[in-house]
Amino acid sequence: MAHDYKLTLKVRDYECDIQGIVNNSVYMNYLEHARHEFLLEKGINFAELAKNNINLVVVRAELDYKLPLASGDQFWVGIKLVQSSRVRFDFLQEIYRNIDNKLILKAKITGTSVNDRGRPYLPDEIKALFLSSSAESS
Amino acid sequence: MAHDYKLTLKVRDYECDIQGIVNNSVYMNYLEHARHEFLLEKGINFAELAKNNINLVVVRAELDYKLPLASGDQFWVGIKLVQSSRVRFDFLQEIYRNIDNKLILKAKITGTSVNDRGRPYLPDEIKALFLSSSAESS
Amino acid sequence: MAHDYKLTLKVRDYECDIQGIVNNSVYMNYLEHARHEFLLEKGINFAELAKNNINLVVVRAELDYKLPLASGDQFWVGIKLVQSSRVRFDFLQEIYRNIDNKLILKAKITGTSVNDRGRPYLPDEIKALFLSSSAESS
Amino acid sequence: MAHDYKLTLKVRDYECDIQGIVNNSVYMNYLEHARHEFLLEKGINFAELAKNNINLVVVRAELDYKLPLASGDQFWVGIKLVQSSRVRFDFLQEIYRNIDNKLILKAKITGTSVNDRGRPYLPDEIKALFLSSSAESS
Repeated sequence: MAHDYKLTLKVRDYECDIQGIVNNSVYMNYLEHARHEFLLEKGINFAELAKNNINLVVVRAELDYKLPLASGDQFWVGIKLVQSSRVRFDFLQEIYRNIDNKLILKAKITGTSVNDRGRPYLPDEIKALFLSSSAESS
Repeated sequence: MAHDYKLTLKVRDYECDIQGIVNNSVYMNYLEHARHEFLLEKGINFAELAKNNINLVVVRAELDYKLPLASGDQFWVGIKLVQSSRVRFDFLQEIYRNIDNKLILKAKITGTSVNDRGRPYLPDEIKALFLSSSAESS
Repeated sequence: MAHDYKLTLKVRDYECDIQGIVNNSVYMNYLEHARHEFLLEKGINFAELAKNNINLVVVRAELDYKLPLASGDQFWVGIKLVQSSRVRFDFLQEIYRNIDNKLILKAKITGTSVNDRGRPYLPDEIKALFLSSSAESS
Repeated sequence: MAHDYKLTLKVRDYECDIQGIVNNSVYMNYLEHARHEFLLEKGINFAELAKNNINLVVVRAELDYKLPLASGDQFWVGIKLVQSSRVRFDFLQEIYRNIDNKLILKAKITGTSVNDRGRPYLPDEIKALFLSSSAESS
């Protein structure tokens, strides 16, 4: 998979649980942080949008856990963004461990954007994101 | 869906994020906690197993986010357990808000059990769980 | 110490870390949740205040860790509230393990309330809290 | 304060709460992560020690919250380590915001090291740490 964006991070000890490995829920944090950093690079600020009552929300998440990360591991999160319907977009995300480039986790996170009345609403910044994606891929 | 187990919880303010609603990753915490409480009731102690190098692990998670939980909300997590292969089991989990019994989240969490060499291994307690399930349902 | 409020909770496995015990930072979550539940009982809603730009904030925290909590432990958080200056209040908080009533943690959390310009500001609900406290103790 | 170690980090959106700022408990995560990275640089691996039943534990924490961090903020954690008794050590920690170098939080975290019987026990690596500190400062 060709990634639109990559972010390198390192496991923090407090993210590990009784089993001595990163807790399952923490991968959701890694994935979210990588998405927000990616969007920020594209001029889309999750926190600013939230202040203006435009909320980017996740409607579905699929995660395949392949191998666990443990204390001290460095890893990178790769993202590929695909528009899946008029108002929905899929973040295809993968996590790889740096030391051996093994696949740790594969995810598909489907999001949409809603306005202050809870209705699907794509702000111009996000529309522009898909226009530029298709332009680049043509 | 008929649930094998139900656990009632309440949103804690620190679980809510910038958008003023429970952060997506926190539902993984709720689901995990409900699974561990359910297993405990069946005589299976996640922490004890981990100490003995028998690790219950999640291999796949599917989550459908329907409605958000917010500060102060009480909710319950329902669980139905299904054996999906010789060494895998699916926890079908749903979260409902107490006040109006609306569906908040629907999930399928697929787990397995591995021994200290990372090989799939079902301890007797877990085998017994499925035996009793099928006995009950026959 | 006579407590104004008590809240009983149970350790969740995801709150435990590599050492197999509740991570130090999680006690801050327990303490915060207990404070917010206590305030709610007194008619003060942390989340509602935040929406109206009245923010209850912690300015100092002192925590003495006596014994660790571990998987499955039930415990209670006791709170005593003391006004420490015109605009500051101290939550004296203790955590006890249910099974043997041993002291787990002792804390003093100093808070204040600030308005949308970041100035100390005590809303009437909070003033009333101290009036009633002194009335009760006289 | 002259720091023995500095670590630069960035706020992640999931670390922010209803008030739109980093939740109080998260600073404990930042401080812990910085301490473990510092110790690692000195050859002391928290996770490895835990596996061998040598547990580094916090016995007291004092935190002064000066200013809040918010979404997108970059900051650095500075550490100065001081031996405070035969078996205790104080991590003097400060958090500064990168953009204006303003002090965000000041903390004193007192730790010790215990063996598998829960008795204070300083492993050689940690003793060496203090020997080298005093050598450097003389």
